[in-house]
Amino acid sequence: MTTNANASLWGQFEIVLDGPSEGNPFRDVTLAARFEHGATSLVVPGFYDGDGVYRIRFMPTLEGDWHYAITSNAPSLDGVSGTVSVGPAKPGDRGPVRVSDQFHFRYADGSRFINIGTTAYAWNHQSGAMEEETLASLASAPFTKIRMCVFPKHYRYNENEPEFYPFPVVTKGSSAWPGQGDASDWEFDFDRFEPEFFRHLEQRIADLGRIGVEADLILFHPYDRWGFSRMSAEQDDSYLRYLIARLAALPNIWWSMANEYDLMPSKNPADWDRFLAVVAEADPYDHLRGVHNCFAFYDHTHDLVTHCSIQRPNPFESVLWRERYGKPISVDECCYEGDIGEPWGNISGQEMVHRFWAGTVAGGYVTHGETFHNPGDAIWWAKGGTLRGESVERIAFLRKIMEQGPERGLDPHPTLTRRIMLAGGMDAVNMDVFRKASEEAEEPRVLTGFHMAGQPHEYYLYYFGQNQPGEVFADVPAGEHYDATLIDTWEMTETPLASGVARGQALKFAAKPYQALLLKRAG
Amino acid sequence: MTTNANASLWGQFEIVLDGPSEGNPFRDVTLAARFEHGATSLVVPGFYDGDGVYRIRFMPTLEGDWHYAITSNAPSLDGVSGTVSVGPAKPGDRGPVRVSDQFHFRYADGSRFINIGTTAYAWNHQSGAMEEETLASLASAPFTKIRMCVFPKHYRYNENEPEFYPFPVVTKGSSAWPGQGDASDWEFDFDRFEPEFFRHLEQRIADLGRIGVEADLILFHPYDRWGFSRMSAEQDDSYLRYLIARLAALPNIWWSMANEYDLMPSKNPADWDRFLAVVAEADPYDHLRGVHNCFAFYDHTHDLVTHCSIQRPNPFESVLWRERYGKPISVDECCYEGDIGEPWGNISGQEMVHRFWAGTVAGGYVTHGETFHNPGDAIWWAKGGTLRGESVERIAFLRKIMEQGPERGLDPHPTLTRRIMLAGGMDAVNMDVFRKASEEAEEPRVLTGFHMAGQPHEYYLYYFGQNQPGEVFADVPAGEHYDATLIDTWEMTETPLASGVARGQALKFAAKPYQALLLKRAG
Repeated sequence: MTTNANASLWGQFEIVLDGPSEGNPFRDVTLAARFEHGATSLVVPGFYDGDGVYRIRFMPTLEGDWHYAITSNAPSLDGVSGTVSVGPAKPGDRGPVRVSDQFHFRYADGSRFINIGTTAYAWNHQSGAMEEETLASLASAPFTKIRMCVFPKHYRYNENEPEFYPFPVVTKGSSAWPGQGDASDWEFDFDRFEPEFFRHLEQRIADLGRIGVEADLILFHPYDRWGFSRMSAEQDDSYLRYLIARLAALPNIWWSMANEYDLMPSKNPADWDRFLAVVAEADPYDHLRGVHNCFAFYDHTHDLVTHCSIQRPNPFESVLWRERYGKPISVDECCYEGDIGEPWGNISGQEMVHRFWAGTVAGGYVTHGETFHNPGDAIWWAKGGTLRGESVERIAFLRKIMEQGPERGLDPHPTLTRRIMLAGGMDAVNMDVFRKASEEAEEPRVLTGFHMAGQPHEYYLYYFGQNQPGEVFADVPAGEHYDATLIDTWEMTETPLASGVARGQALKFAAKPYQALLLKRAG
Repeated sequence: MTTNANASLWGQFEIVLDGPSEGNPFRDVTLAARFEHGATSLVVPGFYDGDGVYRIRFMPTLEGDWHYAITSNAPSLDGVSGTVSVGPAKPGDRGPVRVSDQFHFRYADGSRFINIGTTAYAWNHQSGAMEEETLASLASAPFTKIRMCVFPKHYRYNENEPEFYPFPVVTKGSSAWPGQGDASDWEFDFDRFEPEFFRHLEQRIADLGRIGVEADLILFHPYDRWGFSRMSAEQDDSYLRYLIARLAALPNIWWSMANEYDLMPSKNPADWDRFLAVVAEADPYDHLRGVHNCFAFYDHTHDLVTHCSIQRPNPFESVLWRERYGKPISVDECCYEGDIGEPWGNISGQEMVHRFWAGTVAGGYVTHGETFHNPGDAIWWAKGGTLRGESVERIAFLRKIMEQGPERGLDPHPTLTRRIMLAGGMDAVNMDVFRKASEEAEEPRVLTGFHMAGQPHEYYLYYFGQNQPGEVFADVPAGEHYDATLIDTWEMTETPLASGVARGQALKFAAKPYQALLLKRAG
């Protein structure tokens, strides 16, 4: 059988086939298509969608004609082939996000992706109305990525039972609230999947795609009362392959192996290496891959880790992590704006905004979350819904600043940062010693000082944080001139300070915490 | 010759002798007295005070009769002996501060010393009126220690020439402002001393003693236009011995080998070891000894280092430094409250107060400084004078809390801190993993969370910092009851929350940054 069809670049092309439904098709039937376009060849896995229906989903990565040929151990599926003519991308279709310039991101079409994340771990496990509310909130928020779990979550503030399960229920628990971490009264068939669950998940990720939000999809996590964190290695891998076969053709997916991999006693270090390998092998599109920690960092130098997904409270350390790992830094947890009792869930809006700026001028990207008590405890970080905090509009302001900044992104400039640290009378000898001492310090430390990122000879963005200087000395290259703008990161104001500023020129302004200074090349 | 005299415990007893004035008595005449009291024997160095006058200053460390015998290479001084009858300490005389309970301090008489420092590096090199202003400011401030330099300081904001020099001027510089670090047009006789300089210094330290302030006396520092940082090793040692002979009998002295030892290119690591040895050998009273860093820590495990004098912006790391060095932590520089352009000199008053609390609940002690521009730039950190900031009264409030706290001081409780971090639904298995992960983290890190110090079963002081929980769960030992007080560290209020609080009880209050919670044993 040969089919001919049309598709668009970075769009989705789906082949639907009828096949066997007896036995356990999820486990028993193999299905894949090889798509070829000149020298490019992608093996795209197919999957069983129940009721005798099989699907192969393809996201074209090049315009032009792709030929495909399907192989399967089911004779009725094997040998199908065809051609897809791929036209230009539809407006808004930019393909998956890739690493760019070592520490930054771009869509596959080359356009810039500014990673400004938020977190709503189980938003996709709520009622339809609540999920729509979350999507509406996101549509008017600055976030370009959301951390969310495939599996439902069991935790304080996440006590409701999900609508769908990823696996068929063999025996439902005797209560809606099984003992934490004790699924003994529940039984799922981990060797089959529940297509309805995955259709819902796909729908929600597609919904995110339409509003320009990447799904940082968490594949495993420890907060579990159903047993999904304690499947066998074979079942884990089978789940990953099924998920990837269904979802990988969606452009706006990042694979996050875990939330807090180091809190999962049921997995060992080799499991995480294997998950990375399974995901990388099964996914024809090479979506971004990360492993998020609670305490101990995953070894982000691992070949299959594309970016550092980090939990730490001080995003300014991004400047060190960039050096250590040589990859983009996504500080995917640095505490949440809120007022709940848990220590990670109650920083002020001001502190959240501060951490965004601190991470940004350290050359990293920061992720938001919100944890305010409210009637019914519909907490954004847990279930999505409505954003209540003070940080969101300030994060939007920062996003605007970043969008207006260098196309390449912001890279930290430690040398200049140090140089401005040393303003004020230190003689040349001592400056050398300063440098030597800082290089040889017994522990690599972020130096106290003004933190700055930008692009040399073009754009320098200083952020003063809790510092409140009333003056600074422009530390720009000799012979160049810059326009200086004072930014109040909380009040969201940009005040022109001076035009054509030259090296060493003093800039004076009202001392106040949480200000930034932008020096933009004027000549 | 035999003399008999009376003195008091921790007071000063001075023997004045006439001796040779020809040649260079500073260098040529040796002089010391052995003071004996039962099994206790102290060798007390004497010194030449100019005009043929020699002095030996003794601070009795025990009540009762001390016999002394003087030895000298000058026949007119040698062989003098006598007895001093030492009575009880006069009110307020508590002797030198010693290390107590490994991480804390007490006066020699056993009474508690709470280390709350400030910084005015060159206050003692100003005019008499300015120095009196500084003393008046200190008398009404909460500070119990001040960092100050023996030598004058050359730096922005410290450009005035001092009234006295420690060494006789052979050739005064051709201008009042010699090139930085270039003393070529100045010549001092480093083999003689200027008694007037030291009399003034002694007077100022005694003045501090009368208002209960310890002098953390900086022996060397890099900010020099006179050449005092570049003497020969022999001259350095001779200076140290002369200084100690003159000053050591003052009870309220700490010997700080350096301000920013690692910024002195004229010294090498062995010099600092030698300075410690010279000071320890020459000082009969074993005053506290520290070496303050800019970037790289001195090796505070050194036998002769009594406490860790640290420059770092985050005093909460005291909890780590205590573990690493096993000695009291004095965070002697963590940036200053102010608005000057230098990055270390412009944190807000709120941030200064925050750093005090953060260091305190980490089991450390924190030092203040102030750097506000003002007419004439009489900046406290540089010259002393008048305190202008918002932090001082809040530091006084903290001191009051500390005074009302456990007599032993505050020790951090990482186990409890971690336990309260884990509130909110984590099951027992995951708690174990949490603990294991935090112990095995690739880099030892201060964990995100609520920081707490106190004494077990007695007193627990939580500090929330930028966190703003609206509830916490009392993590007190089972079966015990505590009175809970909410503290607003900025507004300086103490609000009773609940009495007889038991383990696990929820405490709810208005969410706001910079609050603390005190749980005091009630039964």
